[in-house]
Amino acid sequence: MNVAEQTRTQAQAAKEAAEVLATASLEQRNAALQEMSAELIAHEDAILAANAVDIESARADGTGEALLDRLMLNSERLAGCRQALAELCAIPDVLGEVICGRTITQGIHMKEVRVPLGVVGMIYEARPNVTIDAASIAVKTGNAILLRGGKIAQRSNEAITVALQAALRTVGLPVDSVQNLDATDRASGNELMKLHGLVDVLIPRGGTGLIKTVVENSKVPVIETGSGNCHIYLHAAADPTMAHNIVMNAKCQRPSVCNAAESLLVDYSVAEELLAQIAPELVAAGVTLICDQDTLRIARAAGVTDDMLREATDEDWGTEYLDMQISIKLIDGVDEAVAHINKYGSMHSDAIVTSDFETAQKFTSGVDSAAVYVNASTRFSDGGVFGLGAEIGISTQKLHARGPMGLTALTSTKFILEGNGQIR
Amino acid sequence: MNVAEQTRTQAQAAKEAAEVLATASLEQRNAALQEMSAELIAHEDAILAANAVDIESARADGTGEALLDRLMLNSERLAGCRQALAELCAIPDVLGEVICGRTITQGIHMKEVRVPLGVVGMIYEARPNVTIDAASIAVKTGNAILLRGGKIAQRSNEAITVALQAALRTVGLPVDSVQNLDATDRASGNELMKLHGLVDVLIPRGGTGLIKTVVENSKVPVIETGSGNCHIYLHAAADPTMAHNIVMNAKCQRPSVCNAAESLLVDYSVAEELLAQIAPELVAAGVTLICDQDTLRIARAAGVTDDMLREATDEDWGTEYLDMQISIKLIDGVDEAVAHINKYGSMHSDAIVTSDFETAQKFTSGVDSAAVYVNASTRFSDGGVFGLGAEIGISTQKLHARGPMGLTALTSTKFILEGNGQIR
Repeated sequence: MNVAEQTRTQAQAAKEAAEVLATASLEQRNAALQEMSAELIAHEDAILAANAVDIESARADGTGEALLDRLMLNSERLAGCRQALAELCAIPDVLGEVICGRTITQGIHMKEVRVPLGVVGMIYEARPNVTIDAASIAVKTGNAILLRGGKIAQRSNEAITVALQAALRTVGLPVDSVQNLDATDRASGNELMKLHGLVDVLIPRGGTGLIKTVVENSKVPVIETGSGNCHIYLHAAADPTMAHNIVMNAKCQRPSVCNAAESLLVDYSVAEELLAQIAPELVAAGVTLICDQDTLRIARAAGVTDDMLREATDEDWGTEYLDMQISIKLIDGVDEAVAHINKYGSMHSDAIVTSDFETAQKFTSGVDSAAVYVNASTRFSDGGVFGLGAEIGISTQKLHARGPMGLTALTSTKFILEGNGQIR
Repeated sequence: MNVAEQTRTQAQAAKEAAEVLATASLEQRNAALQEMSAELIAHEDAILAANAVDIESARADGTGEALLDRLMLNSERLAGCRQALAELCAIPDVLGEVICGRTITQGIHMKEVRVPLGVVGMIYEARPNVTIDAASIAVKTGNAILLRGGKIAQRSNEAITVALQAALRTVGLPVDSVQNLDATDRASGNELMKLHGLVDVLIPRGGTGLIKTVVENSKVPVIETGSGNCHIYLHAAADPTMAHNIVMNAKCQRPSVCNAAESLLVDYSVAEELLAQIAPELVAAGVTLICDQDTLRIARAAGVTDDMLREATDEDWGTEYLDMQISIKLIDGVDEAVAHINKYGSMHSDAIVTSDFETAQKFTSGVDSAAVYVNASTRFSDGGVFGLGAEIGISTQKLHARGPMGLTALTSTKFILEGNGQIR
């Protein structure tokens, strides 16, 4: 059997497992999570040994240190995963929730009930902790999951899957509920994207290239996640201290994540005053400023040296740097800010700083993003922070789920209708 | 400009229109619907004249009478469309609904609010009334819409669109909110499926082939609709009269629609008793029976002649006839019924007839369909009947919307977060 056939066979097994999982009780699903935690301890040596081989092999192939760090597992990181499992256990069940219900024509009782999606496919990069997170969230929500991680994490993911399947076996749930695909071959990912009818949703998590490939090629419905070209807009009525704090936090606190700021818009009328302070501070923190003409002038006047400045091109307004760089543009009022963000943004998280009520309203209703902020940092965009429980990712599409996705993003609904012989 | 370029240009204009529509008030959107009704009267002669040319041209090309009937408009059918417009006006707004809200970390006020999807693409067959339905539902929910109807309805759809755009112009909403694509060229449909980033969702409505093509080729997220291989399962504890009534209604009342029954499952223990009555009555109504071996024997014993019988192949269990035919299979209990339906069904609407409580529960929780019935006909699956207001179609996928889709299926949500300077 080649890898494509193997993938299809695994998906078929996942579909059968999903039918059993769909009617598993909350107690059984939570017991599986507890057993997963125990099996991760029991299998820790095997997992770390497999991970060490992955790391060694990736390093020999010239993989960079940042990627190696993401790939690396140790006791502390596995303990973090077990902590997440314990927290997931404590989250109330989302299955069976009655979304709405009423008595319809001829006295038929109708209710719309939350049910699992079925089979979830996850395509992601070389972060083995995602394997544990994704598998446990799937089981909590009654879904089977096919995991297609990064090629360089294959041994780690396989060892983790062995542990997770042992847990499923212990509690009497189908072991095929959690399966690791062969990530060493492109064929597994390509086949996964073709399995319309077997796989109910594909969630790509990772870089822009990975997500674009999946969106463009998948016949299975996709939830697009991730890329965040987030803006901070400093309105004429912005409080200067607040403006300063929010820009510095959104840009510098953790520049590599999707909810970090990538672009700064400033009203002309207050640009000199605000940027004279903020520009040098950003530079002092190590941020390169990618500026329009007016901002270049203001930054130079404020003492910023040319090695930390670059003139922006049109492409910059649409770029997610994920790095110590920020694009800066002067604009004329909230309407222009809204238009700019809707044109160049990625519909992730965008913020305005203003003390004017009507301007804030215009911004929140006009900006077409998953999360729109007034007077707060975009860095809060996170399922945990939003109180959604576990987070599977941040959707930047409008269909099905938008913004930080909690457990309900892995569910669908069905209508149940009960009668006593009604016909039409 | 070729048709593909023209389609892209229209989509770009729709995106700009959608940004304006997204913040249009309910009063403005309802005024547009009222004006649409008025303009359909004002343009009735032009619409009927265009339709007459479409009909003549389609008939000359050998189009069958059933399709010609769907294509045909007259004063009465247009009056029906205006009635639907009036009802749509009366439905409460779904935009702005606060789905959830709470105060999160550091006192940030969060709310999740219902917003339009943006640009909706509709690909459908030669039914010009769908043009009016779909356009009006889109405007009611603040969405722009690109309409790609059947090739043979192009003149009718163009004349209707002229009327609808006149209404938009009158109330000051962008005319590009409703646009008719060039359906005489395949390029418009092909291009529409490529417009990821410009078009937020594609809804194909029509035959299985059309839907399959869109699902397999679209880079834009799709809501799959329509095909209904619906089952009636007569359990051992079925009331015989109820069983008879529900089977006859679900199969015969309107066999060409997606919620009509296509397959009958009967428990072995009651098959002789139930089918001895039901089989001849189905045949008397003109239904051909496509049977497994046991059913063939029972039907013959009940006097059904061989011209109304055919032996079923495995393919029959998965076939939607949309016609006076039904497949019949004897099975052994609810577990086998659930497994059969989940294997061969289309996840649309399926019913059990039983007086046993636990069996009913097993069926409703086990069958993985959008609508699951106990003791009622599958023919009730309809947005209007379910109390959802207007219906855009019946989703048979699990993502975003499932079963009959009301206005909320054309919406997304966004998070709005208000603070006073919070940083992380």
